[in-house]
Amino acid sequence: MLVYLNGRLVEKANAAVSVDDRGFLFGDGVYEVIRVCDGRPFEAGAHLERLATGLAALEIPGLAPGELPGLLDVALELVQRNELARGDATIYLQVTRGAAPRTHAFPPASTPPTIYIATAPLTRPHALHEHGAVAITTPDVRWARCDIKSVNLLPNVLAKQQAVQAGAAEAIFVRDGAITDAASSNVFAVIDDELRTPPLTNYLLPGVTRRVVLDLAAELGLAVREQPIFVRDLPRAAELFVTATTVDVLPVRQLDGRAVGAGVLGPVTRRLQAAFAERLAGAVRAGAA
Amino acid sequence: MLVYLNGRLVEKANAAVSVDDRGFLFGDGVYEVIRVCDGRPFEAGAHLERLATGLAALEIPGLAPGELPGLLDVALELVQRNELARGDATIYLQVTRGAAPRTHAFPPASTPPTIYIATAPLTRPHALHEHGAVAITTPDVRWARCDIKSVNLLPNVLAKQQAVQAGAAEAIFVRDGAITDAASSNVFAVIDDELRTPPLTNYLLPGVTRRVVLDLAAELGLAVREQPIFVRDLPRAAELFVTATTVDVLPVRQLDGRAVGAGVLGPVTRRLQAAFAERLAGAVRAGAA
Repeated sequence: MLVYLNGRLVEKANAAVSVDDRGFLFGDGVYEVIRVCDGRPFEAGAHLERLATGLAALEIPGLAPGELPGLLDVALELVQRNELARGDATIYLQVTRGAAPRTHAFPPASTPPTIYIATAPLTRPHALHEHGAVAITTPDVRWARCDIKSVNLLPNVLAKQQAVQAGAAEAIFVRDGAITDAASSNVFAVIDDELRTPPLTNYLLPGVTRRVVLDLAAELGLAVREQPIFVRDLPRAAELFVTATTVDVLPVRQLDGRAVGAGVLGPVTRRLQAAFAERLAGAVRAGAA
Repeated sequence: MLVYLNGRLVEKANAAVSVDDRGFLFGDGVYEVIRVCDGRPFEAGAHLERLATGLAALEIPGLAPGELPGLLDVALELVQRNELARGDATIYLQVTRGAAPRTHAFPPASTPPTIYIATAPLTRPHALHEHGAVAITTPDVRWARCDIKSVNLLPNVLAKQQAVQAGAAEAIFVRDGAITDAASSNVFAVIDDELRTPPLTNYLLPGVTRRVVLDLAAELGLAVREQPIFVRDLPRAAELFVTATTVDVLPVRQLDGRAVGAGVLGPVTRRLQAAFAERLAGAVRAGAA
């Protein structure tokens, strides 16, 4: 499997970064995961925009927003070279503040960023899409800038592992009594006949799939509210699902050991899954046209 | 400069970790910085104990507490090989959850951890020790497990950079109106004739130098209280200093543009600096005996 690292295509087994890389020493970088379907990227513009926003928020120099489409081209070449141009795949793109002698403050602005791009086949969890996943809630102990998609992911790692150990697929974060994100996804619920998802604040990631699902819900004429989902609201949730690039719309059938709603795939979730699949297929067709 | 990486001594310029290293992808690791004086480590036991605690908290397998003294031996060999056995130096020791295909949850427990050790000469900031440093306060946006010395250091990086841009040496974190840590140190103040430092909670790092200073303060018969330091207490602070392995006892003469106390090195800080220097010299002599 080839990857791109700092201007070169190399076999992944030989791809290595300096021990002085600020990604390794500080988690000082941002990343994106972009879905690819039959060689076509989905919502690439939104991903690159978020990447540019993250680079700006962290003041990582050396990679202008105008250069990001070029990285996407490289990524799509990788998809081809790695024989992932049919079916589902993902692009992983990480940018760190580069390698420099260790000191907390930024290194000289001339330090080139580390740019890493990898691709992988994507196996979608069909059974979970149809029958729903098990999830747990866990306290949100993350920092106060969850809106930045940084590689400071230790709390997400620990939460996801807690889920796995509980036999669950995802851990939903609760901060001060309200749901924020999940370990690697955003959260939606159908409560009182409305589709709800927490509003974007500094405490959650502005998910690309979240945005697409909100758009689709509006197109479908669903009642949608971006407002807090409190833990005390959850027993009233008729449906619950999470969204992310790698799982799109993933229903949650059981939370903390209790069935969500009827415990089966609900009608709103099903409609959004279908609309999402259609949007994706349309984007792939348009890209291929 | 030689470093140790996963069982081998290599030139730092050639030392590289896999792009799949969980340190690079998730910041999934812990580290220590140990002071070395004339080839002798200071408070090595406390550092290794904290490292073991961090590995246990993150459930990073493959490195038993009993193996840590062996790593210290390697580090001290590096100190010799790198000709840092005279004067002041530091050991940097980082352990990550190793390299594995990217997924948030833990990789198989058989995944070997990545172990990295480097050494560096230490230049102590003599002028700052004598005349005091400038510091700023900044909101503490870190996660809720600051007691783990992890490499998820992005908020610390951003705070330190904010300090540098303000012409300051350190940024002191304030959470909910109370001081927690600073970007790379612990905080002490002399208020109402008492030496105060925030009590150890999940919101601050249990600093090794912090512990030594508390011990020294007790030995000196100083009135010491581990209790919250609120921002509103700061105007009453007669002295303020930060502690860390690389700076030991560093006075702060100006905070957010206002002089602290008389704006000169205060008597409590001076006594603790002297006691610290004596403790360090004693440890070096004992190690050399």
